Amino acid sequence: MTPISSDTVLAAQRRSAELETRIAQDPSEFRILTGDRPTGPLHLGHYFGTLANRVRLQQLGVELFVLVADYQVLTDRDIAENLPEHVDGLIADYLAVGIDPGKSTVFAHSAVPALNQLLLPFLSLVSVAELQRNPTVKEEIEASRRSSVSGLMFTYPVHQAADILFCKADLVPVGKDQLPHLEITRTVARRFNERYGPVFPIPDALLSPVPHLLGLDGQKMSKSRGNAIALSLTADETARRIRSARTDSRRRITYEPETRPEVANLVRLTALCQDRDPHEVAEEVGDGGASALKRLAVEAVNEFLRPIRAGRAAHLADRAHLRQILASGNERAAAIADQTLREVRAAMKTAY
Amino acid sequence: MTPISSDTVLAAQRRSAELETRIAQDPSEFRILTGDRPTGPLHLGHYFGTLANRVRLQQLGVELFVLVADYQVLTDRDIAENLPEHVDGLIADYLAVGIDPGKSTVFAHSAVPALNQLLLPFLSLVSVAELQRNPTVKEEIEASRRSSVSGLMFTYPVHQAADILFCKADLVPVGKDQLPHLEITRTVARRFNERYGPVFPIPDALLSPVPHLLGLDGQKMSKSRGNAIALSLTADETARRIRSARTDSRRRITYEPETRPEVANLVRLTALCQDRDPHEVAEEVGDGGASALKRLAVEAVNEFLRPIRAGRAAHLADRAHLRQILASGNERAAAIADQTLREVRAAMKTAY
Repeated sequence: MTPISSDTVLAAQRRSAELETRIAQDPSEFRILTGDRPTGPLHLGHYFGTLANRVRLQQLGVELFVLVADYQVLTDRDIAENLPEHVDGLIADYLAVGIDPGKSTVFAHSAVPALNQLLLPFLSLVSVAELQRNPTVKEEIEASRRSSVSGLMFTYPVHQAADILFCKADLVPVGKDQLPHLEITRTVARRFNERYGPVFPIPDALLSPVPHLLGLDGQKMSKSRGNAIALSLTADETARRIRSARTDSRRRITYEPETRPEVANLVRLTALCQDRDPHEVAEEVGDGGASALKRLAVEAVNEFLRPIRAGRAAHLADRAHLRQILASGNERAAAIADQTLREVRAAMKTAY
Repeated sequence: MTPISSDTVLAAQRRSAELETRIAQDPSEFRILTGDRPTGPLHLGHYFGTLANRVRLQQLGVELFVLVADYQVLTDRDIAENLPEHVDGLIADYLAVGIDPGKSTVFAHSAVPALNQLLLPFLSLVSVAELQRNPTVKEEIEASRRSSVSGLMFTYPVHQAADILFCKADLVPVGKDQLPHLEITRTVARRFNERYGPVFPIPDALLSPVPHLLGLDGQKMSKSRGNAIALSLTADETARRIRSARTDSRRRITYEPETRPEVANLVRLTALCQDRDPHEVAEEVGDGGASALKRLAVEAVNEFLRPIRAGRAAHLADRAHLRQILASGNERAAAIADQTLREVRAAMKTAY
């Protein structure tokens, strides 16, 4: 689907391995920008796909910026429904999985005007043709199934460049599908520096080995498909969802992702939650069949989610505290954005 | 060229006449947004086309916002050359023609982050197809003769909506070519109010009868064509330019814009500077021919520009004062933009 060459991916993987070595040596040298759109509770796909990696990097000592991308909710819908609820839920999710506001900065797009202002000069550095070519935007346009593409969706990669460059992040953890997006950010940084002088680092993608976790219907795990296990689900609802998962008609459980994707997915989910090898999990269930596999998966997931659920509920019970964390993060992000904007103004000679 | 129907123009003219009546009755009810890109000194085309009208409205008691659109310089070029010079020159031009910083607010785009942030939600209200259809953008894209159109050029009408709506301007003085631009602003305001509740007034175009002043070569008057009489020109340079103006081979001077555009243009220029009827000016020159007409034009223009030049030079001699005026304007604009952004945040429920 996405025309990203395997050479590009290989190069990014090699580079990421080098970067991981440098991070291990001197984590304080690095700043990372990540984030999510506040469209609903995070799920296990997010957890194993990105949240666990963020917490790992934070614990290593890398400085982490976590963006609540509230404006970007509007790229594929007219109105952002229940935004305050979703934002509170997102921050509770972050705290519950181990994002530490004492070490990391959690902030919202809409609260940092100087970040958003960077969109203006950055738009001058990118052509309409380049925006049209971006494969991720193309895909998202198709996925959004809207009759018309909004200006916000179209310019999304440039706004993302502002997200990444305002805090001069050097690393952006991405899946390989997001490599073209980061390429636009790198282009923006390079062109800005060429035209106006060196202000921005050229950020690197940090590709991490991400387990390919599907939804319980065998499709991509997604909030909107109802096939996901949100971190906020109750134990009963989690059990119900897992019991209704699609499997196949072979009794013996094996780990064969290519030929038995649905069964392999339940095995993988169990293995991830128990931090085990999936082949070992499959071996253990063996002739117990799908029902035994599901029993084990329910147990593993609920056991894994128990402390996260408890943490999430406790955090959500104190909304004022969540807002305080966001306010502090916004303040810190705004101070950094103001400083970057001052440098941008000086470089562009608009500091009259 | 521009596919604006004559019905649209007629309707705008009728509406503008009504508005002028209301302005005369209660000028303090209105706020106006106008502005210029700081790309070089303003010329007589600007003066008679828009500056005189701004000063007239200011003197009537309308609240005027004058935008130094520094980011918009980049819509049709890679780098804004000599920006601080051009900004100082622009403010000196404003003061010299009668913009009064005690009554009007002169401010720069790049100094008002909360204004620029409005671009984000506004981009979500406009489709890419609507941006592509905008005839003024189409024209400007052709006129810029660039191989590629930048994202900044493409989104320019949405940024203009932010300029106009941040201060809740009700009136925007425009030429008829700019009517489609204002239409995008009106659409943005209407859609925002529909989706989020009433925050913005729907601004009206204020079409004013603008004398069609050509450059001295008979082409459109333009800084870049070298056919303009800048307010900053010396009396000698002004005389030289007017003497080199194109005329025709008929001796007797008449005012016939359709058949004798170059001669009519010199007559019109003289008449505007002397606040007389062009037919009367033509009559006065009569059989004196082109050389007598040019002598009269030189005299009229230099007489007219004398106080403006003197004022401009005096203002430019005190750069700190110019910067102080801009800084005060920026501060006032920023306070208004912050207040509007607070209302936008509350309406969009992003005031966490």
